[in-house]
Amino acid sequence: MRMIDVIEKKRNGEELTKEEIDFFVAGYTNGEIPDYQVSALAMAIYFQDMTKDESVYLTQAMVASGDQVDLSDVAGIKVDKHSTGGVGDTTTLILAPLVASVGVPIAKMSGRGLGHTGGTIDKLESVEGFQVELDGDTFNKLVNQNNIAVVGQSGNLTPADKKLYGLRDVTATVDSIPLIASSIMSKKMASGADAIVLDVKTGSGAFMKDVEGAKELAQAMVQIGNGAGRETVAVISDMNQPLGFAVGNALEMREAIDTLKGNGPKDIEELCLTLGSHMVYLSQQADSIEEAREKLKEAIESGKAVETMKTFLAAQGGDASVVDDPSKLPTTAYTFEVEATMDGYVSEIVADEIGIAASMLGAGRLTKESDIDLAVGVVLNKKIGDKVKKGESLVTIHSNQQDVSEVSEKMRQSIQLTKNETQAPSLIYHVITE
Amino acid sequence: MRMIDVIEKKRNGEELTKEEIDFFVAGYTNGEIPDYQVSALAMAIYFQDMTKDESVYLTQAMVASGDQVDLSDVAGIKVDKHSTGGVGDTTTLILAPLVASVGVPIAKMSGRGLGHTGGTIDKLESVEGFQVELDGDTFNKLVNQNNIAVVGQSGNLTPADKKLYGLRDVTATVDSIPLIASSIMSKKMASGADAIVLDVKTGSGAFMKDVEGAKELAQAMVQIGNGAGRETVAVISDMNQPLGFAVGNALEMREAIDTLKGNGPKDIEELCLTLGSHMVYLSQQADSIEEAREKLKEAIESGKAVETMKTFLAAQGGDASVVDDPSKLPTTAYTFEVEATMDGYVSEIVADEIGIAASMLGAGRLTKESDIDLAVGVVLNKKIGDKVKKGESLVTIHSNQQDVSEVSEKMRQSIQLTKNETQAPSLIYHVITE
Repeated sequence: MRMIDVIEKKRNGEELTKEEIDFFVAGYTNGEIPDYQVSALAMAIYFQDMTKDESVYLTQAMVASGDQVDLSDVAGIKVDKHSTGGVGDTTTLILAPLVASVGVPIAKMSGRGLGHTGGTIDKLESVEGFQVELDGDTFNKLVNQNNIAVVGQSGNLTPADKKLYGLRDVTATVDSIPLIASSIMSKKMASGADAIVLDVKTGSGAFMKDVEGAKELAQAMVQIGNGAGRETVAVISDMNQPLGFAVGNALEMREAIDTLKGNGPKDIEELCLTLGSHMVYLSQQADSIEEAREKLKEAIESGKAVETMKTFLAAQGGDASVVDDPSKLPTTAYTFEVEATMDGYVSEIVADEIGIAASMLGAGRLTKESDIDLAVGVVLNKKIGDKVKKGESLVTIHSNQQDVSEVSEKMRQSIQLTKNETQAPSLIYHVITE
Repeated sequence: MRMIDVIEKKRNGEELTKEEIDFFVAGYTNGEIPDYQVSALAMAIYFQDMTKDESVYLTQAMVASGDQVDLSDVAGIKVDKHSTGGVGDTTTLILAPLVASVGVPIAKMSGRGLGHTGGTIDKLESVEGFQVELDGDTFNKLVNQNNIAVVGQSGNLTPADKKLYGLRDVTATVDSIPLIASSIMSKKMASGADAIVLDVKTGSGAFMKDVEGAKELAQAMVQIGNGAGRETVAVISDMNQPLGFAVGNALEMREAIDTLKGNGPKDIEELCLTLGSHMVYLSQQADSIEEAREKLKEAIESGKAVETMKTFLAAQGGDASVVDDPSKLPTTAYTFEVEATMDGYVSEIVADEIGIAASMLGAGRLTKESDIDLAVGVVLNKKIGDKVKKGESLVTIHSNQQDVSEVSEKMRQSIQLTKNETQAPSLIYHVITE
């Protein structure tokens, strides 16, 4: 088999076989096929797309290119959740203990991330003593015991995806639905989940700016998951404004605790109930989505959800008392309010800009080596559609610097007010199951 | 400027600027831009095409990437001719002395080629003593003196094209009209010609199988030439069967001499008169194409053309007496006839297969280092449309091996006979001037 024939076949719009896809992924991983042939193929895929079968083969080949997490010692149907990324997305911190509390085994591998704020691992580290490095046996034992454990990424998972992603990033071939979908799904599949629930974000603060694009990506991922024998559901949710109120690591941890207690922002709670009910259903802990949703609401009301959070934190060495007293989480030296300059309604909150503001305060890392300040961030006091009075606080800035004039200015520019009443955007657009 | 932005712009179907094209060609030539970005761009160009302006900029940037032949010391309007390649294409050997004999300065740089037979340089070397290496001063002096000189390729012409062509060859991006057109035109322009006549072949034995594709390529090249200030005309000619009768180096040399004497195959003569009259007209040696054609016919009839061949060969050290006595050209130890097995008409001669047969006899080189046998080849005795009788010779094989059973068999398979009368294909399909 020759790589040039594989490129030409795809260029001509023909469907590649499993053998051809295995050949190129294995050859690229071991260095026998050079970057310049793979970038030409990626560009051909950008223009000619991939069929469902091709996408499944590509994903499976990338999974096979490296280590795979073995969860066979963990009982039950393990369900993983993935978000395509947004600003203030605290859902994992809430969903993991929430669905675990009703019997779903959560064996999660999570990242630090290079976004505006840290990843789930960073947010968890805002709890003193919390350990994110566990050996495989301890990890499996904790999941069997408590239905929940979260570890940092380790091992050589999907090296083909890492290499291909790096190449796509410099050859203008990132924006290809089958390549994005196979990249995400390969990581989830290599992490050992039996079933996967995807939160595909859409809107100004998301990678996918419009609902149609998000739907296309969601369908591609669901088809890959189902085609590869991992039951997969995707929820398309709004990212035209940050999710919830908090953007920052400890601030989001606190918001997660509030939500588990039933006192969180309504949008986060609703999104968690939607995503969570699909997780519970896929794990066969309920006979219907509706029953699953009722179980989750009950777990919040009864305190079972928040108790699972405590158990989880304590089991990994964390100070679980933060759950009862969130003031023990890291706090900043200063807080500042950004006030409304007129009476009216919030009509726009540019999610990206809010994220950048949090990053400017030190909440995110720019390179893998950067240190992040877990305490800093911003908390929105108003969201789109809310009525505001002149002088009311729109957002609270949590900072360890005394001068936040630049961040305040960015906040003012990013939050639009109008005289006329405005409507909050929808939260859930679609649920994709096939 | 960043290469990824250039790739993305082209990928999105936007027109690249001169600055962007200069940036990528210069950066690729000096190694600052890696292969994997250029192959992604080439694939994007394959799908999104290039405008006339982009093609001109790309060609000019490739010309500027290396040495350029300086013909400013040569008087008159220098016209070069290029063929996209076919089997038995002896036209350069005829055209060069023919148009030189009526006043067109021919300062030609020619290649050895890696085809079924050698290139023009190899064919000329079948004349004993002929020197293809001349220094620049001698070359210019000879052109000023005799209107004609031919040298082998030297210098570092269009290194960007060489590098890009090598990359396209392994990334399935050869078949792109603007990339093919700019590659050909950059080499012609770097060779110093003021005007260019292109012979674009079409048919089963050509790179462009159908007339429409050939027309598209011809137009792209003519637009580049004219856009870059080098007046360019393209003739689209047939390559559904070999041109003329002879396929082989010395055999084609002999056919060229015959044609210059007015005794050549009618198709070759006609094609040379067509291409030649455009060369004469572009060089302003005639006021119309018709007048140019008359001049060329007159040069053949009067013997002026064949005298120019003698002067040309002698000036570069060759034994010019071969022109009067072509039997002095290299000959083979054996000849074999392939006979018709039935009465009928020739309906098909697969040009490629005839070329491969010549190559099997040793007429072509497989690698740059191969030696070729200048004497061997095949001579067709019949062409498409000709009537044949059972037992008549279809083709004569000139070989230095005693066993030519394999070549004979290939000949039999490549020349189809039918009972019904058949028509010869058209020779000239279009002349493209803009």
